[in-house]
Amino acid sequence: MQIIRSIAELRAWRKTAGRVAFVPTMGNLHEGHLALVAAARQHAEQVVVSIFVNRLQFGQGEDFDAYPRTFEADGDKLRAAGVAVLFFPDERELYPRIKQDFNVEPPHIQNELCGAFRPGHFRGVATVVAKLFNIVQPDVACFGKKDFQQLHVIRAMVDDLNMPIEIVPVDTGRADDGLALSSRNGYLSSDERAEAPRLYRQLSAIRAALQAGDSNYAALEKAACDELNGHGWRVDYVEIRQADTLEIAHVGEARLVVLAAARLGRTRLIDNIEVAR
Amino acid sequence: MQIIRSIAELRAWRKTAGRVAFVPTMGNLHEGHLALVAAARQHAEQVVVSIFVNRLQFGQGEDFDAYPRTFEADGDKLRAAGVAVLFFPDERELYPRIKQDFNVEPPHIQNELCGAFRPGHFRGVATVVAKLFNIVQPDVACFGKKDFQQLHVIRAMVDDLNMPIEIVPVDTGRADDGLALSSRNGYLSSDERAEAPRLYRQLSAIRAALQAGDSNYAALEKAACDELNGHGWRVDYVEIRQADTLEIAHVGEARLVVLAAARLGRTRLIDNIEVAR
Repeated sequence: MQIIRSIAELRAWRKTAGRVAFVPTMGNLHEGHLALVAAARQHAEQVVVSIFVNRLQFGQGEDFDAYPRTFEADGDKLRAAGVAVLFFPDERELYPRIKQDFNVEPPHIQNELCGAFRPGHFRGVATVVAKLFNIVQPDVACFGKKDFQQLHVIRAMVDDLNMPIEIVPVDTGRADDGLALSSRNGYLSSDERAEAPRLYRQLSAIRAALQAGDSNYAALEKAACDELNGHGWRVDYVEIRQADTLEIAHVGEARLVVLAAARLGRTRLIDNIEVAR
Repeated sequence: MQIIRSIAELRAWRKTAGRVAFVPTMGNLHEGHLALVAAARQHAEQVVVSIFVNRLQFGQGEDFDAYPRTFEADGDKLRAAGVAVLFFPDERELYPRIKQDFNVEPPHIQNELCGAFRPGHFRGVATVVAKLFNIVQPDVACFGKKDFQQLHVIRAMVDDLNMPIEIVPVDTGRADDGLALSSRNGYLSSDERAEAPRLYRQLSAIRAALQAGDSNYAALEKAACDELNGHGWRVDYVEIRQADTLEIAHVGEARLVVLAAARLGRTRLIDNIEVAR
């Protein structure tokens, strides 16, 4: 596995690389990331993984500085997973003028769901992914369904800006108790870790209710919020949305997704579950 | 020369095309465009020219509907100029949902100079050029210096979003009397056409004064505005700027550009002149 830190060197490698699949990450890799790499390997001989903690997508007061950097361990995992290139640029390489002048501006969905609680987050995600796409020029890129809204924004961006890239969604990796794998799980105390699976259990309960024909979305959302808040969570949102557009779901909609974000102590967890009826 | 109307067909052609140079246009081609094509041919075997009148970059009350469409004559000129592919998508091909959801948002320069008089124009330009770049995937793209602010925005976008494309600037084509070649010159009455070269003469006069050591930028700008307004023009702006950044020029700046936009009757003309000292 080559570790490449400069854009110029990556472009030089890319010229002769043939078909490439790409997995952008912020590092601190867990099994969920390795599932993305495994999916990528099914789509191309050569897999590029990037590790870049992107300041642009963190808001004020968020955990940019505290975000776990575990480069050596990450490198070992990627090498073992058969990755061809680990792209590891520093901030000066991606933001040479510190400020990013041109941004990819997503539509209104960027201000809903997680976007309502993280102003500018999806602009920052869309912009850095557009930059990384232009640098890596992959044929395929893999994104996890764990960040369902992010996956939606990237897919819509690729479609709307005609980027020549196939986006492959990958199922969320989960611990045995259902908790979605996330770098931020590492922030949890042992008590919080024991409580954390309640988020997925609530989403699963909503799915079961929807599949049983309950169509009172607002009541289902409120019951889940109350249950979580009653157990020490501070819920940002629990919402039932149309799965393909992320628009507000109408009653009778066949393809739904239930999305949630909630804070346990100082840790913000997100999760979601798709519902086909 | 192949005429290709669909994105899918262009992508299929692109796969085996080798090195490609690209000239995006809105059609109604004149010698200025053909100079762009000639420059493109010096940079790649295969030249793609697009013709697309981009609604996104026209403001309310601007000349989108009246903009001259001369496809047959344009095709003849491009065929004679040795163009490999004329890409001629319709609006449904580039804007299938009518609304463009994701936009490339340029920094503050988009609201200055021409941007102050054409809100949203440079966002529309940056967005459609990003889309066309993602469709054509050229190695090189040629833009005229006539649209100096546009050239600046495109270059800065390519740099800031790490697009893998070399931007080649091409000198402004001019009539014998100095008038910059422009599709909009066709809107001028014969009296207006006789008056039009005054714009370039005023820019040339400012350049001469700057080269002679005059550094009272504001006075030079005002004198040119007064001269034009006194001859029936309505000046939008005459401004002396730093040539590389388009920022406000400081006294003593070595690389300047003088930019102007002014209306003659119903026609808005723009021009500029670089000043090296």
